Amino acid sequence: MLPLRPPYLLALFTLGFGAGLLGDHFHVATGTTRYFASAHQVPFLADSPLWFALAVGGATAGIAAMRAALPDVRTALDHRSAIGGVASVLALYALTAFLRGTPTALSTTMVSALAVIIWCVLGDRTSLRFGALAAVAGPVAEIVLARAGLFAYAADSDELGGVALWLPGLYFAFGIVAALLGELAATHADRSRPESTATA
Amino acid sequence: MLPLRPPYLLALFTLGFGAGLLGDHFHVATGTTRYFASAHQVPFLADSPLWFALAVGGATAGIAAMRAALPDVRTALDHRSAIGGVASVLALYALTAFLRGTPTALSTTMVSALAVIIWCVLGDRTSLRFGALAAVAGPVAEIVLARAGLFAYAADSDELGGVALWLPGLYFAFGIVAALLGELAATHADRSRPESTATA
Amino acid sequence: MLPLRPPYLLALFTLGFGAGLLGDHFHVATGTTRYFASAHQVPFLADSPLWFALAVGGATAGIAAMRAALPDVRTALDHRSAIGGVASVLALYALTAFLRGTPTALSTTMVSALAVIIWCVLGDRTSLRFGALAAVAGPVAEIVLARAGLFAYAADSDELGGVALWLPGLYFAFGIVAALLGELAATHADRSRPESTATA
Repeated sequence: MLPLRPPYLLALFTLGFGAGLLGDHFHVATGTTRYFASAHQVPFLADSPLWFALAVGGATAGIAAMRAALPDVRTALDHRSAIGGVASVLALYALTAFLRGTPTALSTTMVSALAVIIWCVLGDRTSLRFGALAAVAGPVAEIVLARAGLFAYAADSDELGGVALWLPGLYFAFGIVAALLGELAATHADRSRPESTATA
Repeated sequence: MLPLRPPYLLALFTLGFGAGLLGDHFHVATGTTRYFASAHQVPFLADSPLWFALAVGGATAGIAAMRAALPDVRTALDHRSAIGGVASVLALYALTAFLRGTPTALSTTMVSALAVIIWCVLGDRTSLRFGALAAVAGPVAEIVLARAGLFAYAADSDELGGVALWLPGLYFAFGIVAALLGELAATHADRSRPESTATA
Repeated sequence: MLPLRPPYLLALFTLGFGAGLLGDHFHVATGTTRYFASAHQVPFLADSPLWFALAVGGATAGIAAMRAALPDVRTALDHRSAIGGVASVLALYALTAFLRGTPTALSTTMVSALAVIIWCVLGDRTSLRFGALAAVAGPVAEIVLARAGLFAYAADSDELGGVALWLPGLYFAFGIVAALLGELAATHADRSRPESTATA
């Protein structure tokens, strides 16, 4: 059995897909990243190759589903934490597009500190694991793709093996909020179940 | 009977008046907006025509009074939510003066996402209506005045019929916090009433 | 008797020491401040003279200890408030390094408003006093040292007797969070005490 029903997974995928396109547009429009010709062998949507939006959408739904399958889902969360969480990640994504030309320690501290605050407000012990997972897996995947010549970070923002040192902080916040969305989807699904399933 | 007593209305008007002058100074000083000669036919205070500060002060007191007249005023709010709310709107106002030359989707997302977070923390279902009202009425009024030739937004910040696309987000946050101030003024007035009115 | 045991004081000192070095690097790397030859008569660590890091570390431990000695220590605080508080001050410190060339009222309002929000979320009546103390003592000390010719703020950021007008806001947030750390250290120490002390 899936930990989340298909309509939830689809909604989460779509949210991540759209947020990925929007955020990637921030980076491309400010020259924080740029795609090379080799990336254009696949279709582009807005400023992004289709696989990027698919990957962000898939990661959103995937992390949410993994979280929903784990115990200790917080039931006191309401839709505000979801709305605020998504808004926080979008604002942080937007902030990272302002950081070209700033000293590395400065931009990294600012993004990482804000990501930590997002965890303090919206996270728990379990979401910390998903934040850490995203903070490692996301940058590693981007380093591999950058080395493969598909895209590059600007020369002043490529300190971490070719990607920006603030990138783990951004992915960390993403992982925290994707896990939170999984908790909300799980508890919302529970409440929407037909009453018969609640009989003892 | 007024929903809020005159001393409260005056304090709210004065707060909005001052915040309007300060925020407008941010925009003028950074070239985000500029007033034309036609605007100078009325007296200026600091960088703003008198009517601008009067309008912001009046809108603050007006929204607060409208909110106070509605049911479901939250009684658990304390002075921190008022202080934090006003500080949030001022910080967001200041942020909008940093956004010249940034891609439209980036600046709009950043301001709107932060405005949504302000709602998540400080708002409720009723304040959402005042946020929406302000987000529509404020920019519409500014579009009309900009078309009348009184002022203009910078050429890189005038995508919404002559005003910035982040402007609804800023007004939204303003409406949320003005409604919150109305709730606090209403409950504070209640507590300050002579005891006799509390007799059954 | 010390209000906080030595291991706590040492940890707080080390935290402040490190945060001071990091934040001062932000300012030096962006040209917000620069040290003159006369400052180099003492050893430097990273971009800072040793006394700066020692002073920030000492102020952190000192404020925390003073707070711990006062009544009404909040016992409901958890480690998240400490982590979020430290992250907030670091993010605000980083923000101040972005503000060169912006109008004084704009940068001052932004930093001060965010410092006030930090108080609204993490502070109480007592921490307000430590915030005020830091907001006065820190800038006064820096004004004295700047006048002594040890360092200077950039020409566009020296409106307050030679230091930036946003500096009190940054120190205010520092004082709020240092006091909070003192409360947490005091309650943590209580919990760690051998059980015998809890006997009636």
